[in-house]
Amino acid sequence: MSAVVLGVGATPFRKQPERTLAAVGADAVVAAIKDAGIEKSQVQAAVCGNVQFGGGAGQTVLRSLGMTGLPVTNVENACASGGSAFREALAWVEAGWVDVALAFGVEMLTHSAGGLIETGRPDIANQVGLPLPGLYALKAQHYMADYGATPEQLASVVVKSRANAQWNDYAFFRTPVTVEQVLASPPISDPLTLFQCCPNVDGAAAVVIASESFARKHGTSGPAIKVRGSGVSSGHPIDRADSVADATERAAAQAYEQAGLGPSDIDVCEVHEPFSIAEILHYEGLGFCGEGEGANYVASGRADITGRGVAVNPSGGLLSRGHPLGASGVAQIAEVVSQLRGEAGGRQRENARVGMTHIMGGSIPELDSNACVVSIFST
Amino acid sequence: MSAVVLGVGATPFRKQPERTLAAVGADAVVAAIKDAGIEKSQVQAAVCGNVQFGGGAGQTVLRSLGMTGLPVTNVENACASGGSAFREALAWVEAGWVDVALAFGVEMLTHSAGGLIETGRPDIANQVGLPLPGLYALKAQHYMADYGATPEQLASVVVKSRANAQWNDYAFFRTPVTVEQVLASPPISDPLTLFQCCPNVDGAAAVVIASESFARKHGTSGPAIKVRGSGVSSGHPIDRADSVADATERAAAQAYEQAGLGPSDIDVCEVHEPFSIAEILHYEGLGFCGEGEGANYVASGRADITGRGVAVNPSGGLLSRGHPLGASGVAQIAEVVSQLRGEAGGRQRENARVGMTHIMGGSIPELDSNACVVSIFST
Repeated sequence: MSAVVLGVGATPFRKQPERTLAAVGADAVVAAIKDAGIEKSQVQAAVCGNVQFGGGAGQTVLRSLGMTGLPVTNVENACASGGSAFREALAWVEAGWVDVALAFGVEMLTHSAGGLIETGRPDIANQVGLPLPGLYALKAQHYMADYGATPEQLASVVVKSRANAQWNDYAFFRTPVTVEQVLASPPISDPLTLFQCCPNVDGAAAVVIASESFARKHGTSGPAIKVRGSGVSSGHPIDRADSVADATERAAAQAYEQAGLGPSDIDVCEVHEPFSIAEILHYEGLGFCGEGEGANYVASGRADITGRGVAVNPSGGLLSRGHPLGASGVAQIAEVVSQLRGEAGGRQRENARVGMTHIMGGSIPELDSNACVVSIFST
Repeated sequence: MSAVVLGVGATPFRKQPERTLAAVGADAVVAAIKDAGIEKSQVQAAVCGNVQFGGGAGQTVLRSLGMTGLPVTNVENACASGGSAFREALAWVEAGWVDVALAFGVEMLTHSAGGLIETGRPDIANQVGLPLPGLYALKAQHYMADYGATPEQLASVVVKSRANAQWNDYAFFRTPVTVEQVLASPPISDPLTLFQCCPNVDGAAAVVIASESFARKHGTSGPAIKVRGSGVSSGHPIDRADSVADATERAAAQAYEQAGLGPSDIDVCEVHEPFSIAEILHYEGLGFCGEGEGANYVASGRADITGRGVAVNPSGGLLSRGHPLGASGVAQIAEVVSQLRGEAGGRQRENARVGMTHIMGGSIPELDSNACVVSIFST
């Protein structure tokens, strides 16, 4: 890996049905380009992560900014679309095809019928009443039965998430909550309560990736953040709906190997947690703790910004910042870059030197996932 | 460029609404893997081009083959989706991330409402009655007025297309037609008649890309086909609906430069011609002839398989083989590779040494296109 992140940008994650996809996407792109200290005309290629727009999302955003005539590719990998967009833009730089590539993600969930996140079309589980909250509830039930985890421990994921998000102006939910409040919120699919499910919002995020040589020549406004490693995997079929660790483990192993780093090197990590149980499972998949230890990891405060373990989801994550599908994977990178630059304000992890992002998409009962993307960054 | 094409595969392009996307896609993937002489397990990453399935097309196909646990990315770039899928898979190999990558495209147009190719959602032209046939008819009207091209010359694109397709078992239209028959077919949007518009069909195609070092170690069943250059561009806004050359020229210039080759080096080319006029405009955009000379280029037989110019669309192209959006750009590569291997049977261009593919997508009146991908291959 020889690429660096030159700039990042994101929009607030909100319900903003009155705005267009082009306008919201453009806000993030403009912010990232400004942060990188470059001109729009210096962007040589762009990859856009989007799920629900129905075609040409990237070109629609860039055209509104007058950014035409450059290579643009749209990527769809369910909830991991933003992570895959980053990964494809990175490939263009690593292949030596361009010096400056833009990865961005944008999603207007309030523009979709019901604002719902749909699982795969041929998914029989959806038809028989097992949409994503039900699927993750099953995972939670299995986990609680296998490891003695408690509802209170699950709820502590949300308590941490809200505590972090109160420092994030761009997060959707910013009011701190207690374990009791999380458990008293309306039941969705037992044991998951409303506060344990991520909100559907609109938003965008963008990242400017550059070759090391361009960054050296160009200079950067802040400290250059290095891309150290990146792994991608789809999942294998699974026998039981109790795990989302398979693709996570494989993607993480690739990223760790490429970076020459291990779990103990990670200071801060943005993890894919559309539901509370997901974050707990991913601690284990990413190697932050052993199997069955995830619930205690979060409940004991180890994943707090000031915790003894990895600071997980300092942004508030999907649960508090919100989850506009294609944007989420890119927003994670924006957060980790802010952390590594020391610019994260009230939610800053002290002395953060190595950061990780983890996003996955397309979990269905028959298969671990469609795609998981794990990336590692460092100062 | 150091990548080679190790194997190609395609399905017949047909209306086959009774089959699933997974089954049709799998046919092409299995054929390409067999042609490459490798095992399924040797594929290290996959990129799928698809427009209308609605999410997870690539994973759906590969899961049906038991090909799980590998990185899979879905790419959408309108009619150019297959070309972009090839380009992204190529990036993974060129970045040194994998030795063997699979690019494939699949589309089931008979599964869509009406089987129609829709233009971009926010496209006002669609709402006021200017869908793609009308847009290309305008281009044809402009071209005829500017250069004195005749309806008979436009029709000759179809005559050549059908003449070539009679040798292609996988083409949808295989019956030769005369200029008179083309002009007598039902009017669609003046001057375009029915036979001058591509059929909406279902189909898939796949390409196995490998690093040179893998190919050397592994050996190939046929002569290794080299990827010499590849360019991608989106279009700039245009003042008049009379050109589709802008993005084509830019993508071609990149590909030519990377390959160290020029238009006179191209023996055979698969060109994006959803309508007869498109092929004529692209001769000019790709540099096969000068501005305004395209109509005479085809009418005089220069683009025939045995012509004095570049043999264009020996497969029958979109007009006769058919145009299952995401599959088309990959099917073009399969055709060119067959030509360069000397395995194209009755439609073989004699001594074909250098081949080109050109695909574009998302033409709307305000903009040249969303994406154009041009790639060059050689023995």
